[in-house]
Amino acid sequence: MSYESGTMSGAVDRLVAALGKLPGIGAKSAERLAHHLLKCPDEEALALADAIRAAKDQIRHCEVCFHLTEAQHPRCAVCRDSRRDASVVCVVEQPRDLLALEKAGTFSGVYHVLLGRLAPLQGIGPDQLTLGPLHDRVRAGDVREVILATNPNLEGDGTALLVSQILADTDVKITRLARGLASGGALEFANKEMLADALSGRQRF
Amino acid sequence: MSYESGTMSGAVDRLVAALGKLPGIGAKSAERLAHHLLKCPDEEALALADAIRAAKDQIRHCEVCFHLTEAQHPRCAVCRDSRRDASVVCVVEQPRDLLALEKAGTFSGVYHVLLGRLAPLQGIGPDQLTLGPLHDRVRAGDVREVILATNPNLEGDGTALLVSQILADTDVKITRLARGLASGGALEFANKEMLADALSGRQRF
Repeated sequence: MSYESGTMSGAVDRLVAALGKLPGIGAKSAERLAHHLLKCPDEEALALADAIRAAKDQIRHCEVCFHLTEAQHPRCAVCRDSRRDASVVCVVEQPRDLLALEKAGTFSGVYHVLLGRLAPLQGIGPDQLTLGPLHDRVRAGDVREVILATNPNLEGDGTALLVSQILADTDVKITRLARGLASGGALEFANKEMLADALSGRQRF
Repeated sequence: MSYESGTMSGAVDRLVAALGKLPGIGAKSAERLAHHLLKCPDEEALALADAIRAAKDQIRHCEVCFHLTEAQHPRCAVCRDSRRDASVVCVVEQPRDLLALEKAGTFSGVYHVLLGRLAPLQGIGPDQLTLGPLHDRVRAGDVREVILATNPNLEGDGTALLVSQILADTDVKITRLARGLASGGALEFANKEMLADALSGRQRF
């Protein structure tokens, strides 16, 4: 936006523009955040600036699984953990998905982060994903099972299909996460896809 | 939040914490934004860090009206603009309110930014507002009218009352912004206060 009759300065406009590039932050929110940053104590605002810089500076991708890791550790904390079962590889789209699974705390294998999902309309094709290194990991042996844990939507399903095709020339066992009713939810609010998944995936009681 | 089994690093946690201090950014959003910043090109993330630093560095308050101004200009763009009528002073809570009025583009006077509003429960009393400088401006003469443009809510009204009391020892004309139906809205969706304001403020047609 441009301000009337020079009421504001370039520095504020640039801050608003930079904030407005964050996902989910619209023009109004960007202005609100900018004015908060201008108003809050210097320490607080500069702590954010420094945290951004430090994170960009210190965070790399794990050389094995492409999860985030600190620069001094070429392998991430999961890959370095000898208690994890490295023969079971859970394939996720993003580091955030990995963190969600870790928070659930029920998976003891390792991961492979694709760093994206197939999205042809946004120009994201197989080349942008870490498919080659995944293929190499599986072909190197030692991997018994690959669990496809892409998101349960059109693009995630397409990505899972692609991964399974790429691994078809290996004899690894490929599974995918179960789908059905969301635990804690109510059947009456489940949508058609959830109910279809719940029916087709039904198990003996 | 703490991450399970060392999946993430201090730098990411610190970034999430710093983002989570922004108003309206909860824990989930802070994580989402942090992972966006980790994923996006360095230039983009560092542009934000630099914009924060530059804004904190270069932006000051106008020595006359306390609006934001760049460090090299002790007076803000409105106060420097000789076409503005300096005898009409519009009192607002925050620079954002001033910018909103400037965007509307119908006010040709100048401003006084209180840099807050009375909020006893949050420990914000008269001393935190720029009331002394406002009093001085009015007492120095040259001001014909003070328009109270605080927010139309309890705290804004309390602040307006306080300003009017402080200026009571001067002979300046004190007015406040009109209230009533929101232009563009529908009567049936107006709340009780809006309708009461609209009735009590009715004008001859």
